[in-house]
Amino acid sequence: MNADALSASLIETEADAYGVPGVVLLTMNRPDAFNALSESLLDALQEALNGLAASQARVVVIAGAGRAFCAGHDLKEMRAAPSLEYYQTLFARCTKLMMTIQRLPQPVIARVHGIATAAGCQLVAMCDLAVASDTARFAVSGVNLGLFCATPSVPLSRNLSRKAALEMLLTGDFIDAAEAKRQGLVNRVVPADSLDAEVARLATSICAKPVEAVTAGKGLFYRQLEMGIEAAYQLAGQTMACNMMDDSALEGVQAFIDKRPPDWKR
Amino acid sequence: MNADALSASLIETEADAYGVPGVVLLTMNRPDAFNALSESLLDALQEALNGLAASQARVVVIAGAGRAFCAGHDLKEMRAAPSLEYYQTLFARCTKLMMTIQRLPQPVIARVHGIATAAGCQLVAMCDLAVASDTARFAVSGVNLGLFCATPSVPLSRNLSRKAALEMLLTGDFIDAAEAKRQGLVNRVVPADSLDAEVARLATSICAKPVEAVTAGKGLFYRQLEMGIEAAYQLAGQTMACNMMDDSALEGVQAFIDKRPPDWKR
Amino acid sequence: MNADALSASLIETEADAYGVPGVVLLTMNRPDAFNALSESLLDALQEALNGLAASQARVVVIAGAGRAFCAGHDLKEMRAAPSLEYYQTLFARCTKLMMTIQRLPQPVIARVHGIATAAGCQLVAMCDLAVASDTARFAVSGVNLGLFCATPSVPLSRNLSRKAALEMLLTGDFIDAAEAKRQGLVNRVVPADSLDAEVARLATSICAKPVEAVTAGKGLFYRQLEMGIEAAYQLAGQTMACNMMDDSALEGVQAFIDKRPPDWKR
Repeated sequence: MNADALSASLIETEADAYGVPGVVLLTMNRPDAFNALSESLLDALQEALNGLAASQARVVVIAGAGRAFCAGHDLKEMRAAPSLEYYQTLFARCTKLMMTIQRLPQPVIARVHGIATAAGCQLVAMCDLAVASDTARFAVSGVNLGLFCATPSVPLSRNLSRKAALEMLLTGDFIDAAEAKRQGLVNRVVPADSLDAEVARLATSICAKPVEAVTAGKGLFYRQLEMGIEAAYQLAGQTMACNMMDDSALEGVQAFIDKRPPDWKR
Repeated sequence: MNADALSASLIETEADAYGVPGVVLLTMNRPDAFNALSESLLDALQEALNGLAASQARVVVIAGAGRAFCAGHDLKEMRAAPSLEYYQTLFARCTKLMMTIQRLPQPVIARVHGIATAAGCQLVAMCDLAVASDTARFAVSGVNLGLFCATPSVPLSRNLSRKAALEMLLTGDFIDAAEAKRQGLVNRVVPADSLDAEVARLATSICAKPVEAVTAGKGLFYRQLEMGIEAAYQLAGQTMACNMMDDSALEGVQAFIDKRPPDWKR
Repeated sequence: MNADALSASLIETEADAYGVPGVVLLTMNRPDAFNALSESLLDALQEALNGLAASQARVVVIAGAGRAFCAGHDLKEMRAAPSLEYYQTLFARCTKLMMTIQRLPQPVIARVHGIATAAGCQLVAMCDLAVASDTARFAVSGVNLGLFCATPSVPLSRNLSRKAALEMLLTGDFIDAAEAKRQGLVNRVVPADSLDAEVARLATSICAKPVEAVTAGKGLFYRQLEMGIEAAYQLAGQTMACNMMDDSALEGVQAFIDKRPPDWKR
């Protein structure tokens, strides 16, 4: 098998997943390793996301094959190359992947089952939305091995209240799906056998919206979060004025006034 | 009817509302349009708030006449003037109103019943406090028409956890009052027939406090939120030292020591 | 009694508290004054924390003697010296103490029973973690006396959602322990007679982790919170790479691979 074929097999890509046009399902495919993010898997996921950025995809779903969502970095690989430079490069690569998710034009939904630990938990936190099986469990457990989950703490502390985030980071303890929902780490929790249906429902809802609004909206959302409120409002007002000039918005608003469904060419 | 009379009728102003001296109730009065924020209503609300800033009012309550709190912008008006400049100006005007609420010396309470959608939901998020009927519902539903609720996303993402806010913004779905409380969008939820009593209770509590403390406190609260923690503490310490030198604080603290009610001239 | 002896008695220090090596329990010891933070008590607590920074302590617990955790500043002392300079100095001193908690290498756990009001509530908010008795109650009640809890608002608004924080600050009302947990002010709530056991359990869990990971992790956590997400990731990646080069992390990861307990020299 050549490198490309290998890379491809580490991420399974399914278009029009769940029978919903526009939904792309990316499945991390190292089930025997609980989908640990080896360098190859990081590369494969990065490549898959890069390929989607300019595509017709409307919603991206990230899932894990086998019994877990993702167990974080590949510790064997990490331990085999103990140098500061290696670790700096590795975490920079992982960070690039995480930021790619946030910068992707399409909303990204984490489909979480089993465990999501360390960088796997970070992946959930970085996705725009997350739907979890009620049996899913979450931890940033590096501290149990003497390695504080520093990069996962970045999105975790931007999803959860700070005491809850710090407790997870300092104890390494698991929280269950219900607690993850209460804390803001996931949007919805459903029985395991409803997980795909619920992900499909959420994705379908987003696919029904004009792409211009969704793309501009997601981009704005994260940019304005990092600004003071006045600058945030300035950017939001500009974004919204431009969005209103899109044909899809003009038609959508007109249809609302006319009490009819919008006629959006797809 | 001249413009002033029209403007006045769009906002009904009631002093000493609920029988509580110092409480000013502003009621948006376009019940047939679910109190949609037409340009005239935006102007009328802006004018009413401007007039209160230097007044003896202690607490401002914003409510909606008829079956809803507020359904957002007036879409007919917006659709009738499709130009980038018009929309830029409109959203800038709306932003100015929203920031006026935050900058008003008096605490502003949203009294929410029925629906609060798009800029109506934003209005709830921008108010300092919010009390909702248990039948109230909240959505940032512009995305359903192809118009992402960009300006509403600014306060929404500063009230709710980010995944919950983004879910509302991308799906346009309603959340109910209980969920709005869980998420931090409103402070209290009560049965519809207790809504006025609960608003009155909250307003009365604030009116019982010395005006100096409330005014300085509200102003500080939002300024320090935008600072790093050290700068925030510096400003807070200075604010608190000045507040402590107010006659009302010196008397309040002395009364506490003397185990007697404070003698505050009103 | 000389000043040192007095200072010592205001804070009782217990090493290896709860029978856990490395846990230092600091008990505020002005029970008759509900552990109000007099200048002497502020100094004593500052001194105790300063002494711990470079010590072998692994976890610090802050508790209150008698019926309350802490009732805030000593109002008699404050009222006796009504000058702007005095209050500026007093709040600066209190802020220094609060920031010392956040900057301490060791995690600091608030053990909360009875009431935690004003600067006492602030103390809970500033601790890294907090465990409360189910009968504990929390308020920022200065506004009742005409003194807005400005400095407490800094950590309170960084623990709670903004509307919940502002409601507490403007009404001065108490919230109970269950609500404090829902809002993010405390991590765990247990029956009063399990409070020490639960604090011990949490402290034990942290003490079991290598000190390098905990120290680097706590420091990073607060620094990255004040940064934009890109800078946060940059710092986190660097921190994590350095942490991974620690002998304890290399051993911890190797032990995980070998499916054996880590051999950490203590």
